[in-house]
Amino acid sequence: MNLKEFAKAIGMSQTTVSRALSGYPEVKQETRQKILKLAQELGYHPNRSAAGLATGRAGAVGIVLREGRGFDPNTTEFMAGLANRLETRQIDILISVVEDRQQELAAYQRLAGSKRVDAIILHTPTVDDERMDVLKKLKIPFIVHGRGADGGDYPWLDIDNYGAIYRATSYLLDIGHRHIGMINGSRGDVFAEHREQGYRNALKERGIVFRSDLLTSGAFIDDVGYRSMQDFLSLSEPPTAVLAGSMMTALGVMRAVRSAGLQLGADVSLIAHDDVFNYINADNMVPTVSTTRSSMRDAGVRIGDILLQMLAGRDMSGHREIWPVELVLRESTRPPRK
Amino acid sequence: MNLKEFAKAIGMSQTTVSRALSGYPEVKQETRQKILKLAQELGYHPNRSAAGLATGRAGAVGIVLREGRGFDPNTTEFMAGLANRLETRQIDILISVVEDRQQELAAYQRLAGSKRVDAIILHTPTVDDERMDVLKKLKIPFIVHGRGADGGDYPWLDIDNYGAIYRATSYLLDIGHRHIGMINGSRGDVFAEHREQGYRNALKERGIVFRSDLLTSGAFIDDVGYRSMQDFLSLSEPPTAVLAGSMMTALGVMRAVRSAGLQLGADVSLIAHDDVFNYINADNMVPTVSTTRSSMRDAGVRIGDILLQMLAGRDMSGHREIWPVELVLRESTRPPRK
Repeated sequence: MNLKEFAKAIGMSQTTVSRALSGYPEVKQETRQKILKLAQELGYHPNRSAAGLATGRAGAVGIVLREGRGFDPNTTEFMAGLANRLETRQIDILISVVEDRQQELAAYQRLAGSKRVDAIILHTPTVDDERMDVLKKLKIPFIVHGRGADGGDYPWLDIDNYGAIYRATSYLLDIGHRHIGMINGSRGDVFAEHREQGYRNALKERGIVFRSDLLTSGAFIDDVGYRSMQDFLSLSEPPTAVLAGSMMTALGVMRAVRSAGLQLGADVSLIAHDDVFNYINADNMVPTVSTTRSSMRDAGVRIGDILLQMLAGRDMSGHREIWPVELVLRESTRPPRK
Repeated sequence: MNLKEFAKAIGMSQTTVSRALSGYPEVKQETRQKILKLAQELGYHPNRSAAGLATGRAGAVGIVLREGRGFDPNTTEFMAGLANRLETRQIDILISVVEDRQQELAAYQRLAGSKRVDAIILHTPTVDDERMDVLKKLKIPFIVHGRGADGGDYPWLDIDNYGAIYRATSYLLDIGHRHIGMINGSRGDVFAEHREQGYRNALKERGIVFRSDLLTSGAFIDDVGYRSMQDFLSLSEPPTAVLAGSMMTALGVMRAVRSAGLQLGADVSLIAHDDVFNYINADNMVPTVSTTRSSMRDAGVRIGDILLQMLAGRDMSGHREIWPVELVLRESTRPPRK
């Protein structure tokens, strides 16, 4: 049974059936459910290629992940939010995993050529990022999670990384800290550059000289936090407070502090950036951990929203969105010991 | 430029070009690289549908995830391993997120009809699982991560959940524990049933009567561990040792033990099942945590291997694989206090 036969059998137009089965927002949920049920009863297997010819849709959005980094906790939270939003319209997610930037660009070309996705989500822009230009040339709709160093003339959604770390650093300075360590994300990632600027500007405004031995960068894993904190503690003038780029980093910092026989909060203060995981909770730690907080999952949901609007044909090319970041103070931040 | 024109321009057959761009293992890596480079230079965008006509391949495998559960840390580790293996052949992963079993079955029908995937990965089989029969009827190749309650006449890969918990329980009995709590996965999931059987049989062999107040079940999140442990500690005869279904569960158990003013290892022993995450490390906890250990990521890599063999046309219908599980003893397990 093909689309034509099925549409005839249930007395609806081919366009309505195609749109319903491709997850178009224009079709009422009720109608979609009815058509899905009839398709099952009559044994009609919607052929995506045929549906594509009628609607011009693949019914999927694409995301390219880097091998070994793509499925980290942060990206996963984002994907969970995205998937839950897209699921309401039966839009699938096509994941391509690649080894390097070169392969990533080849993957976009492949995706654009094959018409297997209707739009692409690009994430973690770097300072010199050619990917947005490549996608523009390929004429495939896309949205960026994060933003390019230039601000970018394409749709994007980002959190206020600069403001988050500026405020966290300022708070630590307010309560008397003068030596503040920072364990940042990978160099060259725009979000990490924004965070560094926030850190440096807060120091500068108070006349505190920037110390390069108090700044490290790397992946958001326990081990980087542990080693960075060990290095900090071995300095002749160690930091009395530390900014950790993620909750995973914070776990490593806490471990290094404990290993050195010191007490978090009392001997060393800590503020971590929290993407909000349900399995690593700053409130449940001992002591509880102060955080700059912004839900990665919510960002995924919102990007899903914007994508659905793009797929519905709305012009989202001018869409820019910056989310403020909360500073949540808990037991891990106290004035330095005298 | 279409496939025919491109193949002619570079002096290769359409079949070789198609196979190279669809990630066939038969094509040498070197040839594939060369063709990819030429495609970029000449501006040829491989059309997946055309390639599909030549090779019968979609170049993707499908996995259906349940809303709110799909992107948990366990599944994510599995996906990371899977993606890294498939990436070597440029095979993508198509993710559909659904709300319930009914929608999941509809998604399989949709995937089979659209020919957008070459095979499907089915995971977390339940005791009465109709999905394998549905996939057989749809005549789409699939492999199960886990196994059906009946053993199953289809390819599957599972860990020895029964043996893991049987051994962990037996060890706790060996060192003198008589009241052992178990915080299991969700009821009705085959792996959780296997674990419960391992627990019950180990008790039975020592003549220890099973206590239903010492068995809870639920999602693998911190909160379930915390609440279960609080309940255990409020019993008139609380357990002196606990089996936690995951590292997330273990974090909740540790929190409840601390909150009660007790000491892990000294007052309560703990063995957790560890899927091996790089951000929650049993070796880094205080005290270090004894575990039954099996890498979820390795399972993903291996399922990727088997899928690639299926896609290469090998008959894998008789493939069954059970992995043994290590018992790693650390500081959290000691004989009970006298």
